Amino acid sequence: MPAVTFLPGFRKISVEPGSTILDAAQKAQIHMNVVCGGEGKCGKCIVFLKSGRVDFDRKKFGRFFSPGEIDEGACLACQTVPLDDVQVFVPENSLIQEQKILIDARGIETEFNPAVWKYALELAPPSLEDPSPDLTRLLWGIEKSGGPRENKIYVPLEVIRRIPAVLRESGWKITGTVTLVPGGYRLIDVEKGDTSGNLYGAAVDLGTTTIVVYIRSLIDGEVVGVASNYNKQISCGEDILSRVNYARKGGLSHLQSLAAESINDALTSAANNAGIDLDDIYEVVVAGNTIMTHILMGINPAYMIEEPYVPVVKRYLTSSASRAGIAVKEDAGLFIFPAVSDYIGGDIIADVLASGMTESEEVSLLIDIGTNFEVVLGNSDWMFSCSGAAGPALEGGEVLFGMRANPGAIEEVSLDMETLVPEYRTINQIKPKGICGSGLIDLLAELLRACIIDRTGRINTSISHERVRTGRYYPEFVVAWKHDTGIEKDIVVTENDIKNLIMSKASILAACITLMNQAGIRREDISNIYFSGAFGNYINKENAIIIGLIPEVPPEKIKNIGNGAIEGANIALLNRKKRKVLDEIARTMAYIELNAEPSFMDEYTRSTFLPHTDLAQFPMVEELLESCRIRRD
Amino acid sequence: MPAVTFLPGFRKISVEPGSTILDAAQKAQIHMNVVCGGEGKCGKCIVFLKSGRVDFDRKKFGRFFSPGEIDEGACLACQTVPLDDVQVFVPENSLIQEQKILIDARGIETEFNPAVWKYALELAPPSLEDPSPDLTRLLWGIEKSGGPRENKIYVPLEVIRRIPAVLRESGWKITGTVTLVPGGYRLIDVEKGDTSGNLYGAAVDLGTTTIVVYIRSLIDGEVVGVASNYNKQISCGEDILSRVNYARKGGLSHLQSLAAESINDALTSAANNAGIDLDDIYEVVVAGNTIMTHILMGINPAYMIEEPYVPVVKRYLTSSASRAGIAVKEDAGLFIFPAVSDYIGGDIIADVLASGMTESEEVSLLIDIGTNFEVVLGNSDWMFSCSGAAGPALEGGEVLFGMRANPGAIEEVSLDMETLVPEYRTINQIKPKGICGSGLIDLLAELLRACIIDRTGRINTSISHERVRTGRYYPEFVVAWKHDTGIEKDIVVTENDIKNLIMSKASILAACITLMNQAGIRREDISNIYFSGAFGNYINKENAIIIGLIPEVPPEKIKNIGNGAIEGANIALLNRKKRKVLDEIARTMAYIELNAEPSFMDEYTRSTFLPHTDLAQFPMVEELLESCRIRRD
Repeated sequence: MPAVTFLPGFRKISVEPGSTILDAAQKAQIHMNVVCGGEGKCGKCIVFLKSGRVDFDRKKFGRFFSPGEIDEGACLACQTVPLDDVQVFVPENSLIQEQKILIDARGIETEFNPAVWKYALELAPPSLEDPSPDLTRLLWGIEKSGGPRENKIYVPLEVIRRIPAVLRESGWKITGTVTLVPGGYRLIDVEKGDTSGNLYGAAVDLGTTTIVVYIRSLIDGEVVGVASNYNKQISCGEDILSRVNYARKGGLSHLQSLAAESINDALTSAANNAGIDLDDIYEVVVAGNTIMTHILMGINPAYMIEEPYVPVVKRYLTSSASRAGIAVKEDAGLFIFPAVSDYIGGDIIADVLASGMTESEEVSLLIDIGTNFEVVLGNSDWMFSCSGAAGPALEGGEVLFGMRANPGAIEEVSLDMETLVPEYRTINQIKPKGICGSGLIDLLAELLRACIIDRTGRINTSISHERVRTGRYYPEFVVAWKHDTGIEKDIVVTENDIKNLIMSKASILAACITLMNQAGIRREDISNIYFSGAFGNYINKENAIIIGLIPEVPPEKIKNIGNGAIEGANIALLNRKKRKVLDEIARTMAYIELNAEPSFMDEYTRSTFLPHTDLAQFPMVEELLESCRIRRD
Repeated sequence: MPAVTFLPGFRKISVEPGSTILDAAQKAQIHMNVVCGGEGKCGKCIVFLKSGRVDFDRKKFGRFFSPGEIDEGACLACQTVPLDDVQVFVPENSLIQEQKILIDARGIETEFNPAVWKYALELAPPSLEDPSPDLTRLLWGIEKSGGPRENKIYVPLEVIRRIPAVLRESGWKITGTVTLVPGGYRLIDVEKGDTSGNLYGAAVDLGTTTIVVYIRSLIDGEVVGVASNYNKQISCGEDILSRVNYARKGGLSHLQSLAAESINDALTSAANNAGIDLDDIYEVVVAGNTIMTHILMGINPAYMIEEPYVPVVKRYLTSSASRAGIAVKEDAGLFIFPAVSDYIGGDIIADVLASGMTESEEVSLLIDIGTNFEVVLGNSDWMFSCSGAAGPALEGGEVLFGMRANPGAIEEVSLDMETLVPEYRTINQIKPKGICGSGLIDLLAELLRACIIDRTGRINTSISHERVRTGRYYPEFVVAWKHDTGIEKDIVVTENDIKNLIMSKASILAACITLMNQAGIRREDISNIYFSGAFGNYINKENAIIIGLIPEVPPEKIKNIGNGAIEGANIALLNRKKRKVLDEIARTMAYIELNAEPSFMDEYTRSTFLPHTDLAQFPMVEELLESCRIRRD
């Protein structure tokens, strides 16, 4: 049997007499570019003969080579039969490029390993000499073009039924779409002509309030469209508990279709902007909290809100997008992120993936703050998580002039330590209407530094200053005078607001410390603190430490990963290998039930001080407060 | 780590401290009987401690043991923790019985390895200590009961959606049904309570004319019901070509639903007789010719009847029965036999499987005779096949008094060599109405032996006998006088009938010889000739040789396998391992296009003699004819 040695890799393989160089390449798992399916028509599989004798008709195929290439011994691998042992050099261009390094929109690097591929083929029509069945002809074409082996591809009945007409009506020029499934591959589509340029995937962040979608090319990973809109389920209840209750009362299928509709609307607007067809989206990856993904998949979420709080499913789910009512390509794949528990859902696992914290032995702390908060502590070897209710204060609720991060919200504040006059910035730079979370954190930190409040949050009413006054019920500090605002009222922060803010931040800090104690980790051991979600975007890192929202670490260790859910969904869409990582994350991560943890209440009580009862845990803050006190004294 | 040695197999395995004997058994791939999922509730996993120390509460679980068993060291594997290295004996009863040798209805042995299993489970309800999700709880229960590993089981969305209600409404006592799919397993059903006794599968022979179904228990393989009925497609054309033409004119979906209806009717009557529910049928295996299976799957068969005659698909197909409109359990599997070509379909591959010819190095010849015939020659290493039109004569068509094998058909005839008086037997022993195939073969052989016809089939009209006469158009021989028949007419066989019969038999013999020549096989090399189909059931083996329907072999080498299609379907239903063999058969078998084989016409011409021009190929027949001639001379 002749042996073929492939350069530059020096892979050597023996083949049956009469086999082509392409056959040998396939046997050697070298994936060559064979658009025509090995028919000598596309001229993509050029190799250079370095030694040995071959049977190749250089005259017939000469049109594919430059004179220089002919001098170097150019052959088409698919039309060249080795007559004895040969050595051939395979240029880069003749190989299918499998892995590319992509730079993500937000700067996260991931390998490009999508789970869907298209193969444009020009098949030889059947003849009496080659009466292979249509399906075999098609699958061999895919195999010869560097696709998976013919006998590894499952073909659903619906696709088989379409094949004979598509092949004949297109003159045997078609495009097949193959996706990865457990145990092999699946042919999910056959189209007339060359549609290999139309191959897209969608990443979806299915939030309780907002839905974000990205549409990306699955050929090069580029973002082609982005859109977001409200989750239409809001009409059935604003918070997640009321949604579950609605589902319980027979509303599950209505909620399910609202979720699908919301995704479809966002996809439609992103696709329209990009000028692409929803039918060219072949895969959808969704990250969402456990209740949201249960509802999207039509699975009853009711048992998650009553003792003993069990989800129906935690593992990742694969299905077809159409079964969840998502209006992309028929038979497009749907991948739903796994969950750790009812509270730690696919959105948090996406955060973890996006942070990259599982890829390093360095210990990281990840915090996702909303009405509820989730905290994850760990590294590549282990991971602890917990969740809790932060209360609405950090989102502007239960705070007299609190508001969400909408136009007019004060998002940054600093006080002149001498005059106590606040300098602030509002969203969209219009007159202030209220204060949002990041502004409230700044304010708390600044009031503490200025000794207007003490470490328990009490306002020092003995300070004689026009901005420090007693309101109708509580002492308060005036942030903006009526005539400077957009609401015709003095914007103030009251002692009661401060109390609520401290309770919120105390829950989060106590959760962090509880996880650290569980894992035996000191704050010095923490290499990164990641904030996920809109909240983290605008937060002043030092002020977050000053008030004791998080453990004290050098501020440069604090990073903001933005919308980790959509980031993680994007990564899983582009790099199928990360999907296995997700399941490992979900299996590795221990969930600590804070209410069952006796030490948590103690930590909480200690955390209701600014920043904490034990200043030794906040040495930088201790020093800062010391210097402020000295200055003011 | 403690090591557990399992007797009587002497498998030794080390386990983490704290693991149970059951955990060790699972690690060692020993499948124990654990109905309760390892909760110490069912008492099925008894083992006997032979050496070493264990932690086991013999008082608490004493109710499961007889005093003798306690003396022998009985423990429950799921509740016993080895404290150091131990040896335990595992009695047969504690193991899940995986393989049994079954004797099939027709005497074919096959291992019992079905592709569907039920697991009756009593799950512990979730608690704050164990808040595992519903799906994990269920899959772990299956794994602990000896089923596949939890992470190897794919669960379709439809089943996940049903799980929470089924678990709770049943008090956590449920039955899960798992089937094998490419790359793993699939949970296809979850039912309340213990339904593990209701597990059936169906084997279907989808014939052009007739449909035969078997319903079998998938617990022990027993046949519980059999039924057959006409293929309702007959209303759209009796022969297969007219069906394809009907499909071409837009009738495919009508033909498809008629096929499904015909199968459903047969299944319903078999299930009703057996007193079982169609919903308890979890898998359907169908063997049929290539056109019939294309139509059943809704795949256009049109390209098989025009040049270059290509099927859409040859590989085996798996889908769900519901997609083909077969009214068994929702999500029940459907397995369709593969094909070799448009003419050699799943029915012939089923014949080959049923014959067992692929399991031996002995060379066998398999012949399936109908309006068309198929011939397969080969052994475990190689296989050749061909097909052709036999013409209708052997089924009683184009023969003046020919008829199908219905009541009143003469199915056996012999002549008194002295008086030339025929002795015959009719189906149902009523007055004769005509002659069916086996009767015609007998008649041809007897007329030859009696020298009433010569080796070209001409009637020797010079014989002066009342039964040898000249009819309206042709010389003829009277088989039954008018007054003895049920049709008020003399039943005769004419010289023209004989000519038609010879043309039919010549096609078959020439096909056999052509394959033998291709393979370089002499008649002495043939160890078995298998007849498949109703035709072979009643044929007189010696007479088939005398007329030269088949090559001459000692008659004891000729075997009849009955309806090979239904036999093969039954085997594939009961023994999933044989399904791989099917694909190998389909891939191994070469198809010889007789029309493209120049030697075939020569062989045909030589075969239009009785038995053949070359008597040296029929030495037994030569001797016989010699002795007859001598006697009559």
